[in-house]
Amino acid sequence: MTMSQAVVPSHLEELIVALRCLPGVGPKSAQRMAYHLLQRDRAGALRLSQALELAVGTIKHCSKCNNFSEHEICAMCLSPKRDNSLLCVVEMPADLLMMEQAQCYRGMYFVLMGRLSPLDGMGAKELHLDRLVKRVQEHPCELILATNFTVEGDATAHYLATLLKSQNVKVSRIARGLPVGGELEQVDSGTLARAVLERREVSA
Amino acid sequence: MTMSQAVVPSHLEELIVALRCLPGVGPKSAQRMAYHLLQRDRAGALRLSQALELAVGTIKHCSKCNNFSEHEICAMCLSPKRDNSLLCVVEMPADLLMMEQAQCYRGMYFVLMGRLSPLDGMGAKELHLDRLVKRVQEHPCELILATNFTVEGDATAHYLATLLKSQNVKVSRIARGLPVGGELEQVDSGTLARAVLERREVSA
Repeated sequence: MTMSQAVVPSHLEELIVALRCLPGVGPKSAQRMAYHLLQRDRAGALRLSQALELAVGTIKHCSKCNNFSEHEICAMCLSPKRDNSLLCVVEMPADLLMMEQAQCYRGMYFVLMGRLSPLDGMGAKELHLDRLVKRVQEHPCELILATNFTVEGDATAHYLATLLKSQNVKVSRIARGLPVGGELEQVDSGTLARAVLERREVSA
Repeated sequence: MTMSQAVVPSHLEELIVALRCLPGVGPKSAQRMAYHLLQRDRAGALRLSQALELAVGTIKHCSKCNNFSEHEICAMCLSPKRDNSLLCVVEMPADLLMMEQAQCYRGMYFVLMGRLSPLDGMGAKELHLDRLVKRVQEHPCELILATNFTVEGDATAHYLATLLKSQNVKVSRIARGLPVGGELEQVDSGTLARAVLERREVSA
């Protein structure tokens, strides 16, 4: 859609273009967002402007776990309450949040900030795997791979397992199978096949 | 979703909250957007921050047509090329853009910036209908109502027609019927019924 200069003020057009940096926002959504902000929520727009500037200016990556942090080392890595002998590798900060919400884990984390995906330019270097290896060398611990069960997540886990085998550490991956409350009738056949393949012995 | 202070840096959490001022953006999307910006597009985030501040600071409403404008009176209202004897009423700036793209109209506009919707707090005052009436009084012209063919758009058009009848001006509404290239077999029955009801005599 072309918008003539006479119809759309230039600063409005700039805002519409700028909004398209948000993932999943196309030309129509960007236009709707810009109109909404100017018409209904100018205070919100200013707050967003300031939040963006502040976040970009202050948020970097924790040098230990690679998660977003305002400090050189994040609060979680500094916490004395976390178990130093366990290291869980996740793809994104959102995955770390899910792990924390599940309240099943009190160890440390390493956030890849992505997954192996050579076509998208995500290789071992972009995922800072050298840092992960160095950390394991300096402080041997048990590794739990919690990448997603997607093709790329599987490939990343496989690559990490191969990479870390030489470090002589215990490496495991979180279990795949039927969800809690799941019924055989409703689960997809791929998951069911995996659940049969990765069955566990039942202690009598 | 609650996010503990230890896991999410406060400026990141503020950004996620601020992003929710955008229409159609819930907690999950806001989180994805914030991560994307910090991880992949910090330049875009800064550009968006500046565009928001600039737009909020400079864009107001044209005192004549009520459209967004950086000036007291917008370029379109000042243009000598537009036909002063026609005034088209639309709901939103996006509708004005569509009219311009159709290249079927060279008159002036009045942008309601909404539609009559008492439950959402949109009444005659919020739509600046007093300004529209004053304009028609000062400069009598033919009015073309181009509000949407929704329940609220219909109500708005009906209200405007009643309001402006006393001003002794010609008021029309854009036609409703089958779309160009439309087939009877595919059109919904409501549209077809309307098209029959509002049929036009064919000159032989």
